[in-house]
Amino acid sequence: MCPPALIPYKPKNPKTRLSAILSQEEREQFALAMLSDVKEAVKDAMCSPVLVCSELFDSEDVQVTITDTDLNGTLNGILPESVAETLIIMADLPLANTESIRRVLSTKMDMAIVPGRGGGTNVIFVKEPKRFHVDYYGASFMKHMKIAEDAGLSCEVIDSFRLHTDIDEEEDLVELLIHGSGKSRTYLEELGFSLAAENGRVGVVRKR
Amino acid sequence: MCPPALIPYKPKNPKTRLSAILSQEEREQFALAMLSDVKEAVKDAMCSPVLVCSELFDSEDVQVTITDTDLNGTLNGILPESVAETLIIMADLPLANTESIRRVLSTKMDMAIVPGRGGGTNVIFVKEPKRFHVDYYGASFMKHMKIAEDAGLSCEVIDSFRLHTDIDEEEDLVELLIHGSGKSRTYLEELGFSLAAENGRVGVVRKR
Repeated sequence: MCPPALIPYKPKNPKTRLSAILSQEEREQFALAMLSDVKEAVKDAMCSPVLVCSELFDSEDVQVTITDTDLNGTLNGILPESVAETLIIMADLPLANTESIRRVLSTKMDMAIVPGRGGGTNVIFVKEPKRFHVDYYGASFMKHMKIAEDAGLSCEVIDSFRLHTDIDEEEDLVELLIHGSGKSRTYLEELGFSLAAENGRVGVVRKR
Repeated sequence: MCPPALIPYKPKNPKTRLSAILSQEEREQFALAMLSDVKEAVKDAMCSPVLVCSELFDSEDVQVTITDTDLNGTLNGILPESVAETLIIMADLPLANTESIRRVLSTKMDMAIVPGRGGGTNVIFVKEPKRFHVDYYGASFMKHMKIAEDAGLSCEVIDSFRLHTDIDEEEDLVELLIHGSGKSRTYLEELGFSLAAENGRVGVVRKR
């Protein structure tokens, strides 16, 4: 059985909070490399990736394109039509690996959630998608826990830093350079990024 | 069997990176509340807490006091004398719970490590402490992986955001207010801290 893995993805001008250190073209390449890492992990965990995109882009992947609605509207259009177990995973989780995704998929509960940094939701796995709907943006982790509770769905919170670490800001790149092993790490290194000692925690520097 | 859990702890003027939002007295109370949460989790996981302190302080806990050496020197004095499995866990991990610590203790390898944010090391568990030594500060996670490798010790990296999230900076408080359930969360709330929506991620505000 290969559950679909819905992966929301924005090909144009993504990751604007990295604008100070990456050009638009670099951010687009970097987002693509992270997507590739997530797809790899998802496939290794025996899921079938389906991209949920804000515009069509050149790719061999199965795509659902958001047209006149937003991410929530699109996903909440898909979920009621889904008869099989469904995974929803963000495209900016390049530390995702087979093992962490398998922990999500093997939940004994009705669904599983992995919170992101700062109250977001990075991964949702739901066995009966009809009974759930999403509400992303802001403190979505708490909103999703409440939606599960209101729907009578038991929900496991998966304790994984690999799936908790979404890459949005410069300091997040440190985690990728330390713990990453895929294309997005390689891409950062090709751009000249490396680890640098700061006071206390480690930071990144870029050689040009 | 109750393996000792060594907990480095600084009672006076701790957590200086929170100085902008907490007074020295508040930081000392907050550090004490976090320590209490960590001790609780460690005891529930059947370990015996031993505080490794920079000065003696009023507490019923077993204490080892750092005198003329630093944290590395002190721990590297203790480890060669240790005959039993030993856990070393930082005091600023208030999201630690029984389950996450049990995952560390149940490693099949010679030792287990949980990386902290920004290249640090939050938890070390070593079955034969004589064969290992510590090297904290800076990118200690990489240093500890290298020390394990050089000593021929197999090492599992435990994938836990609860043990990965050390509380050092204002934005880390968000995670505690979302995922915490112990004394340190209650203390923050008593001080007037609560979650606040910012752009994208969620932040904290304090009412005075």
